[in-house]
Amino acid sequence: MGNSFGKLFKITTFGESHGKAIGVIIDGCPSGLEIDEEFIQSELDRRRPGQSKITTQRREEDKFEILSGVFEGVSTGMPITIVIANKDQKSKDYSHIANQFRPSHADYTYQQKYGVRDYRGGGRSSARETAARVAAGAIAKLWLNKHGISFNAFVSQVGEVKAPEYHLMDLSQTEWNIVMCPDQPTAEKMIALIDSIRKQCDTIGGVVTGVIQNLPIGLGEPVFDKLHAELGKAMLSINAVKGFEYGSGFSGVAMRGSEHNDEFVKEGSEVRTKTNNSGGVQGGISNGEDVYFNVAFKPVATIMMDQDSVNDKGEEIKVSGKGRHDPCVVPRAVPIVEAMAALVIADFYMMSQTANLP
Amino acid sequence: MGNSFGKLFKITTFGESHGKAIGVIIDGCPSGLEIDEEFIQSELDRRRPGQSKITTQRREEDKFEILSGVFEGVSTGMPITIVIANKDQKSKDYSHIANQFRPSHADYTYQQKYGVRDYRGGGRSSARETAARVAAGAIAKLWLNKHGISFNAFVSQVGEVKAPEYHLMDLSQTEWNIVMCPDQPTAEKMIALIDSIRKQCDTIGGVVTGVIQNLPIGLGEPVFDKLHAELGKAMLSINAVKGFEYGSGFSGVAMRGSEHNDEFVKEGSEVRTKTNNSGGVQGGISNGEDVYFNVAFKPVATIMMDQDSVNDKGEEIKVSGKGRHDPCVVPRAVPIVEAMAALVIADFYMMSQTANLP
Amino acid sequence: MGNSFGKLFKITTFGESHGKAIGVIIDGCPSGLEIDEEFIQSELDRRRPGQSKITTQRREEDKFEILSGVFEGVSTGMPITIVIANKDQKSKDYSHIANQFRPSHADYTYQQKYGVRDYRGGGRSSARETAARVAAGAIAKLWLNKHGISFNAFVSQVGEVKAPEYHLMDLSQTEWNIVMCPDQPTAEKMIALIDSIRKQCDTIGGVVTGVIQNLPIGLGEPVFDKLHAELGKAMLSINAVKGFEYGSGFSGVAMRGSEHNDEFVKEGSEVRTKTNNSGGVQGGISNGEDVYFNVAFKPVATIMMDQDSVNDKGEEIKVSGKGRHDPCVVPRAVPIVEAMAALVIADFYMMSQTANLP
Amino acid sequence: MGNSFGKLFKITTFGESHGKAIGVIIDGCPSGLEIDEEFIQSELDRRRPGQSKITTQRREEDKFEILSGVFEGVSTGMPITIVIANKDQKSKDYSHIANQFRPSHADYTYQQKYGVRDYRGGGRSSARETAARVAAGAIAKLWLNKHGISFNAFVSQVGEVKAPEYHLMDLSQTEWNIVMCPDQPTAEKMIALIDSIRKQCDTIGGVVTGVIQNLPIGLGEPVFDKLHAELGKAMLSINAVKGFEYGSGFSGVAMRGSEHNDEFVKEGSEVRTKTNNSGGVQGGISNGEDVYFNVAFKPVATIMMDQDSVNDKGEEIKVSGKGRHDPCVVPRAVPIVEAMAALVIADFYMMSQTANLP
Repeated sequence: MGNSFGKLFKITTFGESHGKAIGVIIDGCPSGLEIDEEFIQSELDRRRPGQSKITTQRREEDKFEILSGVFEGVSTGMPITIVIANKDQKSKDYSHIANQFRPSHADYTYQQKYGVRDYRGGGRSSARETAARVAAGAIAKLWLNKHGISFNAFVSQVGEVKAPEYHLMDLSQTEWNIVMCPDQPTAEKMIALIDSIRKQCDTIGGVVTGVIQNLPIGLGEPVFDKLHAELGKAMLSINAVKGFEYGSGFSGVAMRGSEHNDEFVKEGSEVRTKTNNSGGVQGGISNGEDVYFNVAFKPVATIMMDQDSVNDKGEEIKVSGKGRHDPCVVPRAVPIVEAMAALVIADFYMMSQTANLP
Repeated sequence: MGNSFGKLFKITTFGESHGKAIGVIIDGCPSGLEIDEEFIQSELDRRRPGQSKITTQRREEDKFEILSGVFEGVSTGMPITIVIANKDQKSKDYSHIANQFRPSHADYTYQQKYGVRDYRGGGRSSARETAARVAAGAIAKLWLNKHGISFNAFVSQVGEVKAPEYHLMDLSQTEWNIVMCPDQPTAEKMIALIDSIRKQCDTIGGVVTGVIQNLPIGLGEPVFDKLHAELGKAMLSINAVKGFEYGSGFSGVAMRGSEHNDEFVKEGSEVRTKTNNSGGVQGGISNGEDVYFNVAFKPVATIMMDQDSVNDKGEEIKVSGKGRHDPCVVPRAVPIVEAMAALVIADFYMMSQTANLP
Repeated sequence: MGNSFGKLFKITTFGESHGKAIGVIIDGCPSGLEIDEEFIQSELDRRRPGQSKITTQRREEDKFEILSGVFEGVSTGMPITIVIANKDQKSKDYSHIANQFRPSHADYTYQQKYGVRDYRGGGRSSARETAARVAAGAIAKLWLNKHGISFNAFVSQVGEVKAPEYHLMDLSQTEWNIVMCPDQPTAEKMIALIDSIRKQCDTIGGVVTGVIQNLPIGLGEPVFDKLHAELGKAMLSINAVKGFEYGSGFSGVAMRGSEHNDEFVKEGSEVRTKTNNSGGVQGGISNGEDVYFNVAFKPVATIMMDQDSVNDKGEEIKVSGKGRHDPCVVPRAVPIVEAMAALVIADFYMMSQTANLP
Repeated sequence: MGNSFGKLFKITTFGESHGKAIGVIIDGCPSGLEIDEEFIQSELDRRRPGQSKITTQRREEDKFEILSGVFEGVSTGMPITIVIANKDQKSKDYSHIANQFRPSHADYTYQQKYGVRDYRGGGRSSARETAARVAAGAIAKLWLNKHGISFNAFVSQVGEVKAPEYHLMDLSQTEWNIVMCPDQPTAEKMIALIDSIRKQCDTIGGVVTGVIQNLPIGLGEPVFDKLHAELGKAMLSINAVKGFEYGSGFSGVAMRGSEHNDEFVKEGSEVRTKTNNSGGVQGGISNGEDVYFNVAFKPVATIMMDQDSVNDKGEEIKVSGKGRHDPCVVPRAVPIVEAMAALVIADFYMMSQTANLP
């Protein structure tokens, strides 16, 4: 259980970090959509490790194969299955943790819950699973982009280094540096910080900001399945995420109503809001303004230092990270945040077709 | 759609602020549970308006009636239906907003999505719906308390006024002041702040902190239905919520891995962690430590001042709040946060029965 | 669990035979639908007991009240809650079965599964629950009738007495006799049979045939959620049902492919089939022809004779029906079959909006 | 949508007849189960074509590969993915039907619903999809067999040739003839009939009977998700199925209550029923007696004769089956019926853990 996301545009992911493959079934993709495989690959490449000095050196090609649901380049309405083989497995690297519980990893809780676990590279709890989300998200994007909806995420904070607010930057610049921050001066500080942390064998957290633009009015469902509640769940389900806020978020707490309320105005024939503390969502339903949100990532748990822990016999031991790990996860998390946002919106877009039928 | 929450311990709420009644069906409550009606009433009373100078003076008795699922005081495993009649309707109060869209309310988005709306007091989008959640949460608590699990929420911030961290306070003191903050000096500052804001005809936001204790190890599902992801969705679905964080949360962003990791130690025969930045959840699954989290509430949107807006003919107008409204929502949100937490845990508790069957 | 039906047009029923009330929440009804309360009442009246010599003399008014989701006579897209109070409870009638398990009732299995049960009149397992389905089905009909779709059920068999095939009769005649069979000579035989069975203190089974006409092409989902599979589940969930078949059904078993296949022909610009052994469904998806199906009902389990049984102490005892019971359930099952058919189609109609989006 | 089955023991199948592969994800299989790959293969082999003169000569090896969820031979609680490559694709065989709609196939309805279809061998609507169900069902059986529950299906009717009732035969003899009927004299008549039909280039229908033994009391949920309703849906979702009945089924219609009721008796300390017209299910919940049911299959739609049809331009044409097809589908349907029964029971078995928690 827990491996599916979405109600109508629904994905189920599978696979462990060092098993044969990971992958995803997308059930509910509309028929008649051209499936641009190059685009899917380009999205996977954005998440791929081993691309710069500030990410892990593990090399995965992340080549995918579509097993079903696409005929002559077009979606048929049948489940689309995408499989990504695990090439760079090197299981031996992980034999040392078979009986150990690494601090702030999922080793201990999986062992307690299931009585058995695939310990190789974290198994199912590895962030490798998110490649499947990115592949599925790419298909959601292909569809929603046709409707003019855009998804942009970027790194807005690393440690204490913060970027300006999103509307003060040119989001098309995100890809131009290795830390995925569209503001070049901030990006340089972030890179310097990560590089210094890496040399200290330590890790650091960060924030990814997501922006969804050109959303139609009316997405989101009342009460429990509010647009921002599903977005929040989607983001919180990404490995290492500790918090989610949208619109004014936690800073709205200290504001007064008179300051926080988004007054309505006419812009030509359109109803708009003067400000956007609501983050594009009122009563759980999109109002046509930008949806923007922050996702907090903790520092990566694997560090190259000795830490206290216990093993599966209950003995106290020392553990230390080995091999190749990210000193900071946020640059690679950018496409994952976008993918999850696209999956949430795809689902609500479908659902919205049924709200007000003639 | 969107009116149900949970998979196995599942609730569906219904009703509008000024309709005949609001209520909830709980489908999946285990049989054989003694249903203590006094406890349910006491939980509803905690959320009830009109109790102090810092909450709305609207008076609702919030008397409930159980229509089904309980026989001779005991749950039968059948759906439990709880109905709360709307006594204090005064629909005329709201006729002035029939054609207006109040800033930062759900009026505009509901109208756009559905083409029709019950405008009286916000209709379905009113926070009155949360009384149904509190009633259902009371039943979840009755069950989970039997297993030793406790749920405590309190007001940890109003505007810029913050309480100490939860483990530095005595949470049993929460109920002893009208602002629901267990630290008396902080509570006094909060009350003074809210009172001054109220006199300015304005409103202010705040933070509710939730703490779940004595959770068994192993609750939560991998990947999408992580314990904290469902908790986050649950909290974000509450009216006026703008953000959710658990454990170290947003402050974890600036920490180093060596500082943030929760090292394992033995305490007697138990495995524990030295610190709890994980907030009791690792890999989406409870590890036996306290689960704690913060929920950010924006300032109440209804203010007693003129604001710019538009009406349903697209004309620019002025709107102003009338009647009785909360200057700060957080004191009354405390039982709602607890109720949603209890509903999340009840669902995972049931789900956990199926993970590792002989 | 198990008290909900449907994915997008979704109902949840509640209530026991002799509790305070039974009812239903409909979540997902499109907004903007005029809710004709007289029509709902007329549907409930068709199911109501006590209407003729061949049905139980228990008298229930079955007056309903709408608690939510309808504003100024129109659906708002919010959950619609319908409650039917139990007026004619007479709980004392049932005290004699508190500790007994009636043969071929649900007493024994409920007791074993839940450890507790509301024994009054069968509690939740009573066919009284189906009144809630009829109310919800009436709303589905109101909506689908606007799209030209019609639902007609009738009694096609009682004991060995069978009516002609549906297309040889005028289905508008169904209501004109107390046995709900549109063929008058057959109806008379059926009534005579039921009356004679009743005098023998016994009961008899029967078949209800359902016909859905003017369905659009394309309803139903591939593989597991085939149109006829959901219809089958819907019908099998009605009390006392033992079998379901559609199109040629069990008689198709003895046919040859060359005889059974429905050849395609042109009728004007339309594609039609020469025959309709498929029952309007091919590959689980409607093809525009009539959908027709048979639902087999067993004889009512409550008979006015002594039968062997056991009690909850495991002692062998004699039990006998008391009070007022139907000698044959099928006449009153006709509106229930129609209601369930309408609920299935409403759900697929909504789902079909999402299959082939531009 | 529609490609998933089950709530807690949940499968999602994918793949088209002549695509790269078909397969299944099982989400919710308990951890700690030994996954016997030989058993899975033996179940697939029972369904495999090309095994005798009365089945299609298409040869598929149906070798499967497990991509995830199994570690060192044991289930981990993570999703189990099974892929079966399509070896014998020969897509050219099907080019002649690219623009044609075969009578009583899904070609026309899929084209109308989705606007596009994979026409090769029926694509997603091909019975090849059922191999994925058999693989998943094998895992359900592995688990449930450990709890003593057994699943036996057999061919009980071909055309007009019927086998004796199930309790009069030795079900262990089912595999000993090519028609999968445990009664040897009946089997011979069935084989002769199918062989003669095949020589006439025609096809014939049949019935598969399923028997589930040693079920615990208490499986099944009240109201909509009754045990027999889910079984019915499961069976009706199998290709070519036209009807489902359990216990007395359609023959119960003509019985009297006094004859049909299953009186309770004591057998030692156990409560049993004298007869079993209920088919092991009362009020939708298992009572510990055998669950038995019949599944009606229509004659295979592909026949080697000219039939009238239309093409996608709306022109009237003649179509005729080509290649290798089954003259009668029921012998190969036996393992599919067992697999679906096992999947239904696995789901209810899990669900039953949550009904009556201390």
